[in-house]
Amino acid sequence: MREQIMKKCMELFAQKGFSETSIQEITDALGLTKAAFYYYFKSKEQVLMEIHTDFIDAGLKEQERILKECKSAERMLKENISLIIKSANDPWAGKIFVREMQNLKEEHLAEVKKKRSLYQKNIRRMLEIGVENGEFSPDFDLDIVAIGIYALANSTFNWLKPNGRLSESEISNIFCKLVLNGIKKQ
Amino acid sequence: MREQIMKKCMELFAQKGFSETSIQEITDALGLTKAAFYYYFKSKEQVLMEIHTDFIDAGLKEQERILKECKSAERMLKENISLIIKSANDPWAGKIFVREMQNLKEEHLAEVKKKRSLYQKNIRRMLEIGVENGEFSPDFDLDIVAIGIYALANSTFNWLKPNGRLSESEISNIFCKLVLNGIKKQ
Repeated sequence: MREQIMKKCMELFAQKGFSETSIQEITDALGLTKAAFYYYFKSKEQVLMEIHTDFIDAGLKEQERILKECKSAERMLKENISLIIKSANDPWAGKIFVREMQNLKEEHLAEVKKKRSLYQKNIRRMLEIGVENGEFSPDFDLDIVAIGIYALANSTFNWLKPNGRLSESEISNIFCKLVLNGIKKQ
Repeated sequence: MREQIMKKCMELFAQKGFSETSIQEITDALGLTKAAFYYYFKSKEQVLMEIHTDFIDAGLKEQERILKECKSAERMLKENISLIIKSANDPWAGKIFVREMQNLKEEHLAEVKKKRSLYQKNIRRMLEIGVENGEFSPDFDLDIVAIGIYALANSTFNWLKPNGRLSESEISNIFCKLVLNGIKKQ
């Protein structure tokens, strides 16, 4: 039941927006009483926070796998960029993640921001590995390049359309080529 | 007087947020009556729209100059990226531009989005010039690269801090190097 409530909330938050969705609508759509909702969740905001943490925790876990399994920094960055663009294509969570962050409570927002900054640090770590093993140029400020790559890939959350002119993987390839040409050792 | 009202609104919108600023506060801060405000502006939203159009029109005008004056596409992109990062450092308009867009009326939002897309097209034009004259690789999808460069430079609106570790122009140089290495003919 908890799972079903989460799923319905994701659907409604993505379609109508968080502020425009009432708990009444959520429970009506599932044929539940409001009491059932409050049995599982303290508030609508708690659901929003769980959507955010599930989304970003899954991303962080994938990054750990990438850092452990990939044999080159180039491969790491390719997989990470492709992963971000794939997430942007998620019809529900992706939309909510980028649009509704400002509706989180202050302490939740701080927690999400901390995780996003960890995500960015992992991208920086991949760049660092590439510099250490001679794949990438040592002449870059890696903090700024990591921010740039994260921003580049994340921008797809704002404009990627399902069934657009280019596929998710085509876009990912273009961004990877741009960035990897940019930082590789000349 | 119109100018003074605009300036005070920019200050208050940037400090407190558009929704949190009342017309009463604006007129109190200037020692005016509300009637004086309504003599110059139809609504608070009209001021917000003018802040947006002034900001983006100034950017578009600069792009025209860049397209006309610069001798190479590399120079054009460098100037354009540096221009965006400079705008992001504007303590008032830059903040309002990125945070308050969703408070525009639907038809105003459509107008601003149209201008933003024109801005992106101008970046695409610079890339095209570079491909035509042999500076840049012909192997890129220029729409996607233009979106990427715009996103990269615009991300500074979200994180650039005055008096941060690196200056505006240092950050601009890093992004330019990354992007220009990325697209130049090998």
